[in-house]
Amino acid sequence: MVVVMQEGASEAQIEGVVKRLVEMGMDVHRSTGVERTVLGAVGQGRPDATLIEMMDGVDEVVRISSPYKLASRTFKAEPTVVTVGDIRIGGDEVIVMAGPCSAENEQQVRSTAAAVRRAGAKILRGGAFKPRSSPYAFQGLGEEGLRLLRDAANAENLALVSEVMDISQIDLIERYCDIFQVGARNMQNFTLLRELGHRRKPVLLKRGISATIEEWLLSSEYILSGGNTDVILCERGIRTFETATRNTFDVSAIAMVKKLSHLPVVADPSHGAGRRDMVAPLARAAVAAGADGLIVEVHCDPDHALSDGAQSMFPAQFDRLMAELRIIAPAIGRSICLESAPRRGWGK
Amino acid sequence: MVVVMQEGASEAQIEGVVKRLVEMGMDVHRSTGVERTVLGAVGQGRPDATLIEMMDGVDEVVRISSPYKLASRTFKAEPTVVTVGDIRIGGDEVIVMAGPCSAENEQQVRSTAAAVRRAGAKILRGGAFKPRSSPYAFQGLGEEGLRLLRDAANAENLALVSEVMDISQIDLIERYCDIFQVGARNMQNFTLLRELGHRRKPVLLKRGISATIEEWLLSSEYILSGGNTDVILCERGIRTFETATRNTFDVSAIAMVKKLSHLPVVADPSHGAGRRDMVAPLARAAVAAGADGLIVEVHCDPDHALSDGAQSMFPAQFDRLMAELRIIAPAIGRSICLESAPRRGWGK
Amino acid sequence: MVVVMQEGASEAQIEGVVKRLVEMGMDVHRSTGVERTVLGAVGQGRPDATLIEMMDGVDEVVRISSPYKLASRTFKAEPTVVTVGDIRIGGDEVIVMAGPCSAENEQQVRSTAAAVRRAGAKILRGGAFKPRSSPYAFQGLGEEGLRLLRDAANAENLALVSEVMDISQIDLIERYCDIFQVGARNMQNFTLLRELGHRRKPVLLKRGISATIEEWLLSSEYILSGGNTDVILCERGIRTFETATRNTFDVSAIAMVKKLSHLPVVADPSHGAGRRDMVAPLARAAVAAGADGLIVEVHCDPDHALSDGAQSMFPAQFDRLMAELRIIAPAIGRSICLESAPRRGWGK
Amino acid sequence: MVVVMQEGASEAQIEGVVKRLVEMGMDVHRSTGVERTVLGAVGQGRPDATLIEMMDGVDEVVRISSPYKLASRTFKAEPTVVTVGDIRIGGDEVIVMAGPCSAENEQQVRSTAAAVRRAGAKILRGGAFKPRSSPYAFQGLGEEGLRLLRDAANAENLALVSEVMDISQIDLIERYCDIFQVGARNMQNFTLLRELGHRRKPVLLKRGISATIEEWLLSSEYILSGGNTDVILCERGIRTFETATRNTFDVSAIAMVKKLSHLPVVADPSHGAGRRDMVAPLARAAVAAGADGLIVEVHCDPDHALSDGAQSMFPAQFDRLMAELRIIAPAIGRSICLESAPRRGWGK
Repeated sequence: MVVVMQEGASEAQIEGVVKRLVEMGMDVHRSTGVERTVLGAVGQGRPDATLIEMMDGVDEVVRISSPYKLASRTFKAEPTVVTVGDIRIGGDEVIVMAGPCSAENEQQVRSTAAAVRRAGAKILRGGAFKPRSSPYAFQGLGEEGLRLLRDAANAENLALVSEVMDISQIDLIERYCDIFQVGARNMQNFTLLRELGHRRKPVLLKRGISATIEEWLLSSEYILSGGNTDVILCERGIRTFETATRNTFDVSAIAMVKKLSHLPVVADPSHGAGRRDMVAPLARAAVAAGADGLIVEVHCDPDHALSDGAQSMFPAQFDRLMAELRIIAPAIGRSICLESAPRRGWGK
Repeated sequence: MVVVMQEGASEAQIEGVVKRLVEMGMDVHRSTGVERTVLGAVGQGRPDATLIEMMDGVDEVVRISSPYKLASRTFKAEPTVVTVGDIRIGGDEVIVMAGPCSAENEQQVRSTAAAVRRAGAKILRGGAFKPRSSPYAFQGLGEEGLRLLRDAANAENLALVSEVMDISQIDLIERYCDIFQVGARNMQNFTLLRELGHRRKPVLLKRGISATIEEWLLSSEYILSGGNTDVILCERGIRTFETATRNTFDVSAIAMVKKLSHLPVVADPSHGAGRRDMVAPLARAAVAAGADGLIVEVHCDPDHALSDGAQSMFPAQFDRLMAELRIIAPAIGRSICLESAPRRGWGK
Repeated sequence: MVVVMQEGASEAQIEGVVKRLVEMGMDVHRSTGVERTVLGAVGQGRPDATLIEMMDGVDEVVRISSPYKLASRTFKAEPTVVTVGDIRIGGDEVIVMAGPCSAENEQQVRSTAAAVRRAGAKILRGGAFKPRSSPYAFQGLGEEGLRLLRDAANAENLALVSEVMDISQIDLIERYCDIFQVGARNMQNFTLLRELGHRRKPVLLKRGISATIEEWLLSSEYILSGGNTDVILCERGIRTFETATRNTFDVSAIAMVKKLSHLPVVADPSHGAGRRDMVAPLARAAVAAGADGLIVEVHCDPDHALSDGAQSMFPAQFDRLMAELRIIAPAIGRSICLESAPRRGWGK
Repeated sequence: MVVVMQEGASEAQIEGVVKRLVEMGMDVHRSTGVERTVLGAVGQGRPDATLIEMMDGVDEVVRISSPYKLASRTFKAEPTVVTVGDIRIGGDEVIVMAGPCSAENEQQVRSTAAAVRRAGAKILRGGAFKPRSSPYAFQGLGEEGLRLLRDAANAENLALVSEVMDISQIDLIERYCDIFQVGARNMQNFTLLRELGHRRKPVLLKRGISATIEEWLLSSEYILSGGNTDVILCERGIRTFETATRNTFDVSAIAMVKKLSHLPVVADPSHGAGRRDMVAPLARAAVAAGADGLIVEVHCDPDHALSDGAQSMFPAQFDRLMAELRIIAPAIGRSICLESAPRRGWGK
């Protein structure tokens, strides 16, 4: 922590701050300039910056260590690769997760899963419990949805990611899924994060709609500090003044997070865009910027989807997107699954 | 719903949209202008606006009914007054809730409660479970904190409001408190809101740091639709580009919510400000703008508080603020408790 | 400037930074902690912080002096009072400026001026050149508008403030007005600001719709550094994600600016609100928060105004507002003109 | 315009609105539903939506035509290609503009121009007049800078784009440059835009840091409506709550603008990023999202640049970026200049 005293701060004020910092367990270095005194405080203490800032004579307080530790490049320089079976997220291959917003019925889940596998997706996405802003909207099929998704994933040899909204759902979702998804609204549901830190399955942690990058990494820290090191970050657009697009997809955040953290970061262009004709440009942009993967909403019949239909791609649009991504990925030394995974026979 | 077709939309495109709306259970009125056709859709259906917007020939879709019902002035024109004992929130008196960020020990809770009662507060605030951005920060005393708060409230004849972070805490907090507080991070924790809708105690619902007013009212709808009509809204500052202040206290929201909704709205100038020397101006502004109450952090020794010390007022500052508010309230036909409530003997 | 080195920065990297800072004219103090080295750089140089930040081994660079000087409380502790005739902006009295958005015709200007004077305004506001987002909207009467405004101000013994949009308009507006108004869109029109710094009439500088407080004070510095010390800051709402209100009126900024700067700050609740039924709550809030004045749009017939009609108050609304403000001002030790100024006969 | 009446609006209120709309020159279609009445107003009038919104019984007013005309796809469906010599902006080739933030001296301009030409840039960028937030920062070389830039552009067979800050600079910059650049801070300097509408050289119009897409297109309308049809839009990052990156580069805006408008859109990843190690990811993302070109800051010695050094690329970084872009462009059916343009001998 660096404490910048005001110009003209008195000796008594300076000494008051030094004394307080020492009480807080810090060693203090003092630099006296012509105009100002600057105090550098180092040590094992965790002084409260805002309290120091309120002291007489203090102009500004600057933290000099990031508040997150385990998520930082300082703590671990080499990138983390999260593995699910033979799928490696954060490695050379850009991993694509795709599927419907929510499971609606067997036919819808099956045909969508088959379509995304053929196009090159490795992981099926799909929700069984839906957080909706309005209490009057479709809320998901619950466990029945999870069963449909698992069956389809098995049939198509895909891994499965699905959203967990509450600690009460963790055990259930763990039984069916390979990756826990934590939605944007739950990014600071610390009770949930802490419990996921004690599980062994990877967690895909979406950025809150108005979360800073620092807060996002702090939330990952809740999971990491519990012992679960398999966190996948997911950028999905932030809220800004612009209303022509539903969210502002923060492509800069992808590049910045890769500088600050060793964790893999994927992008959700579907929520970033909010409408299907904007998904492909954002997906291409995310991969070009260095994203380790994508999570995309695809529906076999989006015009009749029970949720998020407008932002779900038709299978043919998704095919074309995958072809475009295969051209882009080599620009940054990455690849994208060329051939669809061999289909594992249903029921085998 | 109003559907604005593009200039030059074909007859087939227009008929396609009409057909789809009718399928969705709507009656459709068609207005043909020189340049454009506009379709008005009314009825009991709940058409998905974004899906219609994706149809060929459609330029824009406009919802014509607010997505919230029970919270709106249209549903209930007269203001709701939430009562807790003889305290009326939303009536002529501006109600002040005050107390420490978190309960730390008996002496701190007792002396702070006594101070705020003497100054005119009617409700004690204080946390036992603290949501913290960092897993390494003080997380609250738990039930012991609730017990300390309840005892102090009883001793001072104050009602008690305390934060509930998770459904697992509801029963416990209900035993000790008069009002459930839902924090900004939980404004869209729909599992929690739905459960609180089935309880009988009032809920103070803070606005999320990046929630629109519409989303805030939709969240109240989760509680109201469960049968609990005692919701108190609480503005506490939103996140903007400005960094000189911790949040941007949205004083306009207070006036706007009172137009849109019958629910009482209070202000939290402590979180809005983030530092104690900014709390009084925001508190005065909130009352001048028409807030039905305030919730203020006060601490008997803020420099040694375990959380939020920098934004907690000294008791003497709080006294002065209450005196200022007593001058302001009559400008809008309100009053503020002049005399402190008679102290109820401890343990009686 | 404080330079925080990365954990594990090499001696060569540290020395490279020290060498560079010395080249830039700074004295460097070095603090070596267990984990990190921190460099404090003081002196007369103006090192480019972002360049240092790009150097190998550097984690973060923190400026320790505010980039503005003349506008700061450090430079001048006592508040600046801007005087126009016998009107003192920044003194004990809260000064109210009011009038139409734009001058439209003699009758409109005259009757509006008479109405605001009777209610207690001291300064007439009104535009002759209007910056409009659309090239197809009413653009103002030009010099004829200025003449109408001046005549009405003289007749009612009011001072006059009017917007200058471009350096080419300065001479003209100076002939007619007592205070130059710089609109939000021109807050960083540095050519204009620099020229106004060489004039002798006060400048009312509106905050840009997305300007930080620091940028706003830096813009005032362009005027102050030219020798014109009479700058009045004006908060008028910022752009945020909220769309229920046209802008988010930043009441916190009023309190913060008064801490950081000695300049008077007034509020424009009309643009902050965007609709007349929201103007009074924001005006009351601004005064309660400590604003030195208000600038309010009032129109004798707002329903037929050529611009900003929806946010212009009826004279009767303005009367009521002034009465409310007279109750509020004493809460912060201020007053508001009780009696209307004696009317100076027209043409005398 | 569609006017949605409140539930329970009286017949008198409805008729009042109809009457007002007819006075404003509109034809009105009335739809009466069970709960509400909706009025569709079409015609040649330009009714003020906010005024109607203030009328009794009105719930909401929705504009049904975009406020910009000439910039819209409705007005002109096929994309505009802006030509400068044989350079076509908006055609199949992605056009890259590159060069220093500001011209500093002959050697710097010459060597930077040579480097960017070799890498494949077609247009030299560079400033002679610099808008700076602080009055104490380097403000540019003025005409001498323009001369240096023009000479270097001629020597390397590059076209030249440079910023015009004020109408007083237009004639001068027109003599030296091929494209006028309007900076973000001047996006709503309507005096400047209107004058550029009367010139014959193309205008590169940067988006304001907090401008909505609609406002940006409205600003282009000021130029287009003057008769100058050669407008190039430029996305350069918007201001949001995120502070880890200097701006939030709005890649969604690129895709959205191409839907709404026929004008070409280029991206400025340098200002979007604010630091050179973030420029390449954003540049790749912009091209992948469909940008028609880029404008990039490159400096022969960025560590000693007089402005924007931290965000200026080294020539070798720019070479690598161009190679990456050549891989990406074909994914969206575009190309990027493969061979550097033949160098035209200096002085010829």
